[in-house]
Amino acid sequence: MAAALPFGVAHGARETSSRGAGASAPGAPALDPDLAAAIDAEADTQRRLVGDALASGAAYGRLARLVRVAPHRLSGSPGLAAAIEWARQECHDLGADEVKLEPVDVPHWERGTVQCVRVERADGLGGDVLPSLALGGSDATPKGGVAAPVIEVRSFDELLRRADEARGRIVFFNRPMDPRLVETGAAYGGAVDQRVRGAIEAAKAGAVAAIVRSMGSNVDDWPHTGGMSYQAGVARIPAAAISTAAAERLSGALARGPVELFFEQDCRWREGTAPSFNVVADWKGREHPDEIVLVGGHLDGWDVGEGAHDDGAGCVHSLEVARLFAGLERRPRRSLRVVLFTNEENGIAGGREYARLHEPELAQHVLALESDAGGFTPRGFGTNAGAAGFAWLQRIASHLEFAGAGRLTSPGGGADIGPMAPKGVPLVGFRPDGQRYFDVHHTHRDTLAEVSPRELCLGAGAIAAFLWTVAELEARLPRNT
Amino acid sequence: MAAALPFGVAHGARETSSRGAGASAPGAPALDPDLAAAIDAEADTQRRLVGDALASGAAYGRLARLVRVAPHRLSGSPGLAAAIEWARQECHDLGADEVKLEPVDVPHWERGTVQCVRVERADGLGGDVLPSLALGGSDATPKGGVAAPVIEVRSFDELLRRADEARGRIVFFNRPMDPRLVETGAAYGGAVDQRVRGAIEAAKAGAVAAIVRSMGSNVDDWPHTGGMSYQAGVARIPAAAISTAAAERLSGALARGPVELFFEQDCRWREGTAPSFNVVADWKGREHPDEIVLVGGHLDGWDVGEGAHDDGAGCVHSLEVARLFAGLERRPRRSLRVVLFTNEENGIAGGREYARLHEPELAQHVLALESDAGGFTPRGFGTNAGAAGFAWLQRIASHLEFAGAGRLTSPGGGADIGPMAPKGVPLVGFRPDGQRYFDVHHTHRDTLAEVSPRELCLGAGAIAAFLWTVAELEARLPRNT
Repeated sequence: MAAALPFGVAHGARETSSRGAGASAPGAPALDPDLAAAIDAEADTQRRLVGDALASGAAYGRLARLVRVAPHRLSGSPGLAAAIEWARQECHDLGADEVKLEPVDVPHWERGTVQCVRVERADGLGGDVLPSLALGGSDATPKGGVAAPVIEVRSFDELLRRADEARGRIVFFNRPMDPRLVETGAAYGGAVDQRVRGAIEAAKAGAVAAIVRSMGSNVDDWPHTGGMSYQAGVARIPAAAISTAAAERLSGALARGPVELFFEQDCRWREGTAPSFNVVADWKGREHPDEIVLVGGHLDGWDVGEGAHDDGAGCVHSLEVARLFAGLERRPRRSLRVVLFTNEENGIAGGREYARLHEPELAQHVLALESDAGGFTPRGFGTNAGAAGFAWLQRIASHLEFAGAGRLTSPGGGADIGPMAPKGVPLVGFRPDGQRYFDVHHTHRDTLAEVSPRELCLGAGAIAAFLWTVAELEARLPRNT
Repeated sequence: MAAALPFGVAHGARETSSRGAGASAPGAPALDPDLAAAIDAEADTQRRLVGDALASGAAYGRLARLVRVAPHRLSGSPGLAAAIEWARQECHDLGADEVKLEPVDVPHWERGTVQCVRVERADGLGGDVLPSLALGGSDATPKGGVAAPVIEVRSFDELLRRADEARGRIVFFNRPMDPRLVETGAAYGGAVDQRVRGAIEAAKAGAVAAIVRSMGSNVDDWPHTGGMSYQAGVARIPAAAISTAAAERLSGALARGPVELFFEQDCRWREGTAPSFNVVADWKGREHPDEIVLVGGHLDGWDVGEGAHDDGAGCVHSLEVARLFAGLERRPRRSLRVVLFTNEENGIAGGREYARLHEPELAQHVLALESDAGGFTPRGFGTNAGAAGFAWLQRIASHLEFAGAGRLTSPGGGADIGPMAPKGVPLVGFRPDGQRYFDVHHTHRDTLAEVSPRELCLGAGAIAAFLWTVAELEARLPRNT
């Protein structure tokens, strides 16, 4: 999961809108009794798919292989290329009728080897090196680093009011994710502007660099990277995140007196774009092979940790749907398509290119589901489906209450599938529990060791079960209008 | 959480009965509109309590202190005594109006220092030491150990059929927890007879020892201890658990040919009982100080790991309710009682003694809630409340849907509060997500490192919010009849 996406918004909306197992879509019509009965008739298969996912443990084994083959999968890296080749082979091994690598040009940023944020002068903190990571897309500092006094702010409004103080300084953005919010995605959405636009706003005030409190749920010493932006006509100043614990220490020192920071990093943009690919694999439906039920995640990831939750989990969730369907006596009526997108984290070039290239067949995309919120225990699904489609999906999800995945809420979707929304494709985002996601998100800690085998497999089973009924029902899910 | 308790049964029942946010109790009456409105009026306070729990992180800090003060808390141990003194002080520090240590005699078993299960002769596995732990309550092997051929069985029925083969041998019980079940408690309930009664049934067949596959969800190398029983008139043979991975290896070797095991352990029962205490602390209600809302967990634990989830989590959940209530402008109408029980794991002496000693005031126990299923993200609550009470509690829980804790199911309760059930006290068991519980349960791995700060605190907030409304409502929750 990347930066300034509708994630936070969706979560925030959910937090206020959900009530009861399946939140009601406002004005959702009652379901036709025959349709309801047809949905209910798939409940046994849904339950079987969940059991199969748990009993096999296959999703976890596949994730272990992915992170061994390619722990670092940033756009333009050899790791991403290896992951794409791995995914192509996995789809073949899972019996796909067709596997395509669809070319996508992706941006190419590299972290470099120098990374240092050090407290130069401060009461009680002099000489401390603060755990830091360059923000993805940042320019380097000048060679030899920059040293400047620090000004701490909590918001862009505060920065605007104190713009005079920011000139020539390093701006330290230190508004935490709101810990009171149950939905950590909402807390992320409420703080991530500092990471995404902090360098822009600081530069407008004449600052020389931006340091951002990590987007983490806890106070600990793991720095979180993630995407940031520059704006045409505004100076490009370097930006990095420091750990939340370092942010607390730095803030404490600033409360005691002036602080000067030294900051150096040598990350850089490579010229032009790099070649990459979406991996697109089809398992044809037995009755309506032209109608597509799509499931996907993104194969790229940040260059720290192993991207196990973000988004190795979503990739193996998607592949597991194909494996689980293949374990049944017959294929569903509609085709299953697995899409492993490239370049979600710093561009969404993969998602945009998929929607562009497949525009002629988007009318035949019955539903697209993305898993990009980690491999945690499932809670349910979010969707952008209109009232009619929502009622269908709510009924389908209700049969996953036994797996703890019965909650359907609105809105929902995903960064990579988002570009299909204007064409009326109903979108669904998998919604696992989020309490631990921002412990690991975009950090060195996002590793296989942080993934629970049963939680990962239960999520895969829930996704497969949800999609099974959409793919199998005689009636076709209504499109969005 | 201990052995042969109604846990598995309760989970199994839930797995089939729950549907929708609050599962309906069969025949639950509609709630009086005024009562419903009074419950709904507390929703804002419930939400505030959850936010306070998350923002403070206090439950996690308190758990960190408990496991540092007393990581091992088996009945009769110095660790349990230290934990009891710690809890008494914590209750004082939290402003309790009264704190009592109520004496309980507890059994006293010690693990000793010798523990070895080794493969003596087998195709491909000779000399392997299998990770093992004596089952709690087992006798020692003869000094110098026992060595005998192994017979593997999956059930007591199979053992009965093959009783001739078991004489003079070591019986290896190797039926796994059913991985297909979403509710891990149900899977535990379906396998734990092997641990609890395996030594009895093996002895009846003339075996010299019992080796049990660990009660774990995964195939890994952590052995799980836990309670076992002897039966008067049946020979007492020693019993230990081996890790699930070792069980798989041993089973593989047995498929290739005969296997002989060497088994030695020097655990022992101390004579008589040891002195211990329940910790009972009251925060008096502002209007009905004689009416009690009880929340508790058990302070004892196995002598491996830190008992962080089992049941350090339940203890700090309970203490956090007191802290959160104290943070509000006024006390609830009814009294809050925190009870930290002793000896849940190998006797339930604490739970029985509490019900006996407090029998005269059980009619004034409005509700008793136990947290003993780990410090994981909340899902809801289970209860034994009758139809009328269920409808109240369902309405109360519905306001915790935003915290993912809105699911009320039947049955429910807890081992320590169970002895109050015959007196009509409505019982509630906190129900967190269970996917990771049997990764750590009764193992060296049950440590603070396996506890998510936010999951633990969210659970505490959900419990506090649930109990707040019970304690505050003018109307009193109906008793069970």
